[in-house]
Amino acid sequence: MRLLVTCNLCFQIDNPVALILMLRPFRGIQQWIIRETYTIKPAVAVTESTDSYGNSCQRLVAPQGDFLLYTSAEVIVNDFIDTMPGAHFVEIQYLPNDVLPYLLPSRYCESDRFGELARDLTAGALPGYDQVACLADWIRQNVQYLPGSSDVHLSATEIYQRGFGVCRDLAHLGIALCRSISIPARIVVGYLHNLQPMDMHAWFEAYIGGQWYAFDPTQYGLYGGRVIIAFGRDAADVSVFHQFGFGAILTSMVVRVENLGNSMN
Amino acid sequence: MRLLVTCNLCFQIDNPVALILMLRPFRGIQQWIIRETYTIKPAVAVTESTDSYGNSCQRLVAPQGDFLLYTSAEVIVNDFIDTMPGAHFVEIQYLPNDVLPYLLPSRYCESDRFGELARDLTAGALPGYDQVACLADWIRQNVQYLPGSSDVHLSATEIYQRGFGVCRDLAHLGIALCRSISIPARIVVGYLHNLQPMDMHAWFEAYIGGQWYAFDPTQYGLYGGRVIIAFGRDAADVSVFHQFGFGAILTSMVVRVENLGNSMN
Amino acid sequence: MRLLVTCNLCFQIDNPVALILMLRPFRGIQQWIIRETYTIKPAVAVTESTDSYGNSCQRLVAPQGDFLLYTSAEVIVNDFIDTMPGAHFVEIQYLPNDVLPYLLPSRYCESDRFGELARDLTAGALPGYDQVACLADWIRQNVQYLPGSSDVHLSATEIYQRGFGVCRDLAHLGIALCRSISIPARIVVGYLHNLQPMDMHAWFEAYIGGQWYAFDPTQYGLYGGRVIIAFGRDAADVSVFHQFGFGAILTSMVVRVENLGNSMN
Amino acid sequence: MRLLVTCNLCFQIDNPVALILMLRPFRGIQQWIIRETYTIKPAVAVTESTDSYGNSCQRLVAPQGDFLLYTSAEVIVNDFIDTMPGAHFVEIQYLPNDVLPYLLPSRYCESDRFGELARDLTAGALPGYDQVACLADWIRQNVQYLPGSSDVHLSATEIYQRGFGVCRDLAHLGIALCRSISIPARIVVGYLHNLQPMDMHAWFEAYIGGQWYAFDPTQYGLYGGRVIIAFGRDAADVSVFHQFGFGAILTSMVVRVENLGNSMN
Repeated sequence: MRLLVTCNLCFQIDNPVALILMLRPFRGIQQWIIRETYTIKPAVAVTESTDSYGNSCQRLVAPQGDFLLYTSAEVIVNDFIDTMPGAHFVEIQYLPNDVLPYLLPSRYCESDRFGELARDLTAGALPGYDQVACLADWIRQNVQYLPGSSDVHLSATEIYQRGFGVCRDLAHLGIALCRSISIPARIVVGYLHNLQPMDMHAWFEAYIGGQWYAFDPTQYGLYGGRVIIAFGRDAADVSVFHQFGFGAILTSMVVRVENLGNSMN
Repeated sequence: MRLLVTCNLCFQIDNPVALILMLRPFRGIQQWIIRETYTIKPAVAVTESTDSYGNSCQRLVAPQGDFLLYTSAEVIVNDFIDTMPGAHFVEIQYLPNDVLPYLLPSRYCESDRFGELARDLTAGALPGYDQVACLADWIRQNVQYLPGSSDVHLSATEIYQRGFGVCRDLAHLGIALCRSISIPARIVVGYLHNLQPMDMHAWFEAYIGGQWYAFDPTQYGLYGGRVIIAFGRDAADVSVFHQFGFGAILTSMVVRVENLGNSMN
Repeated sequence: MRLLVTCNLCFQIDNPVALILMLRPFRGIQQWIIRETYTIKPAVAVTESTDSYGNSCQRLVAPQGDFLLYTSAEVIVNDFIDTMPGAHFVEIQYLPNDVLPYLLPSRYCESDRFGELARDLTAGALPGYDQVACLADWIRQNVQYLPGSSDVHLSATEIYQRGFGVCRDLAHLGIALCRSISIPARIVVGYLHNLQPMDMHAWFEAYIGGQWYAFDPTQYGLYGGRVIIAFGRDAADVSVFHQFGFGAILTSMVVRVENLGNSMN
Repeated sequence: MRLLVTCNLCFQIDNPVALILMLRPFRGIQQWIIRETYTIKPAVAVTESTDSYGNSCQRLVAPQGDFLLYTSAEVIVNDFIDTMPGAHFVEIQYLPNDVLPYLLPSRYCESDRFGELARDLTAGALPGYDQVACLADWIRQNVQYLPGSSDVHLSATEIYQRGFGVCRDLAHLGIALCRSISIPARIVVGYLHNLQPMDMHAWFEAYIGGQWYAFDPTQYGLYGGRVIIAFGRDAADVSVFHQFGFGAILTSMVVRVENLGNSMN
């Protein structure tokens, strides 16, 4: 389907502050960006770079006063997300080099602490896709998806204890569980058509059977209509915006996803 | 200034053929892409990737029949291009690692054959910027810029003998001369406002005094208003389109550059 | 000085298990590797790769039985480590792209939780080197360096509460504090001549005034004689060995550093 | 087999001159480096880096006088080189991103000029491995391998006309022919056991059926016992030594390859 996604951010800046933003759709995967806009008011110098995961980052210093970022994109994405029950676990020695970082514990995914739980939860499951599906199901049934409950400092161990969280929290828990049984897993940040309530979304992918598969523990059913912005080890790598110091107060964030239909012609 | 650039390509495809395209403006330098469109008719699956120079490439198989690529971008660029007479030559041991490939001879820039000429032409010049300025001046005065005279197989040695060429040919000669005296040089492909006749353009950059400086031997005066698409060792790296096999006939290519004024607000 | 470093690891392998090892000295910095050996008994197939930080990793499957890794290197290193009191803080917008990952929180360095403490500890210090020196001094005086007290699951917040740790713990605390005030910091794993007791060592580097400077909160005095193996965001990135699954028991690890004198001729 | 390879270079340096060297065995492929030495006399500061192909480069300034480089390595390599008649041509759209540069023409491999010849020579051959085997056979039968006939400025078109060349020349011709029919090909520089006369050697690899296969048009029979130093688009990328300016005269180059037997225990 062809989606029109929009993310508009308004900041009140008390003192000039450095920001790193990730607001462009990701290039190089199965989504085709037909049109993209990115307006910054007031206009300031921007340094754009690509990180080691392939994400586009925009660095700038926001000046005092109102600071506005308007971004939109028209993107052709898949209507359906691939699933592959039975896809096999890839032994460590056969993983592609660029997948290895996604095996390691990270800020919000202390996979070194989840081995026992993950083995219990996946007991009897076929190594690979079915294990991950087990883990995602378990999260769906045991950790409440509570939009708005966010505390950006919480990690997978804390979410596990608390029993509820936002989309990134559930993704973190899924990632930590996967990695603890040697399945590479990464966070995905992007847009999801029909998400309720509409917001930026996060889910995760696991590397199985030679490719990445998506899992979304916040949804019953793996819906298509996803525009991906960034991949990372966890949310620390993929903030939509990250301020260095103080001085930027987000006064409004509007996210929209509109279905423009199936044809691009 | 704020430029609206357009490049529309029409192909007649006799047999399905693989194409690699470079049609998106470069990200990560001093140009800010406010808006970008990229339409492919008929729509086909595209694999997008970033090469080792940071250029975006689009790979696809063009189906039989008419095949159309419409691209445009609105980009904020500098009105003036930095020059720096006197900027010093950087000794090999102090060059950043990612600059080293631009020291080596390449398909169209046989720098291993131009050492004597380059030393003659730059005799007495201060090592660095002034040498490159000498070389660009010499090309401007001795190699005729003849739009339309293109033969894509010609390299710097052949252009030197022939005495005329298109923009890429003059850039190749400049690059070969620079590298032959150990100054890293690279080709730049992009749009130039007010280019006569309007077309895709190519010029070159040399690494001097710790940064890249632009030189354009086709123009008297280093005009601003440039939207960069790609960097490379020479034209072999940065074809706007490259077909693998036969079957694609370019029936029309329209390039436009419009100045939208200085304000983006 | 010219150092001969040795690290020999003996494992008892109950079941074949995948290992990722980092046991080669780092290439590409101010240490010159004259000689290097790496013997694996029994010989098995090894996949060697370079991670995004430039570290060499060796991946293999250790077979059942005794499994031995003998590594050594003769390396010319600096006698003294550069210090630069007064070196200035680099604003975010001027940091090189490849330094940006070292600003982010990571598994063992929850820099998002240390802002208040770091600002208190560095109150009045000149932004940059002097701030980091303050932080390293504070760790040296307030967190006991206790070799052998290791628990690999502890992160900077836990070490801060516990008040003692091994070298990697103190490094993690230093890194978390630096990043919390927007100074990029990374862990370094390697050998240190005359370390008491001898073992693999870890310290940290902070990016200040346009380059990386070393800090070692475990030592009074910043001694030279360091052979670097790997850099990373924290210890999660740079395990000397990492097993995936169970089955490998480290039965012996011998680390030696010998000074072969100043001349290599 | 386990090979001991040695390359000793002696230069007479009239004026200090920058050199870039490639003298370390390649890491990350099917060869395991047990031991490696690299001695420089007199000792000078060296900057080591990895290029975009994964090769290790050593940059230094050679001081006036005699300048000596002694390198050796003990490496476990395959006794036999994989061949795969029938392996299929990989369509452009399915090539891995990092293989794409090897499709393009380069300094010594003007593949844009060999399409007609390559199609003639491979008429009737199964697309893929068999085409490359045809091309290598044709070179073997039609271009004389003449060690010592080197002129480093000659490219594939010139070798084709001349009808004889050194190993790198034959490799260049093979590469140009492969690329002209859309088969990625790259040069390999390294050691070959039992090469007559002993010297550094060059051959080529083609990407077919999802992996790289070696071809050596200088030899009747594809012998094992190869220690690889570097990969590149052609010899411009992989000089064992490259001087920038004048002043370095190679007075002696000794290459040795010794078989230490099949066991490493």
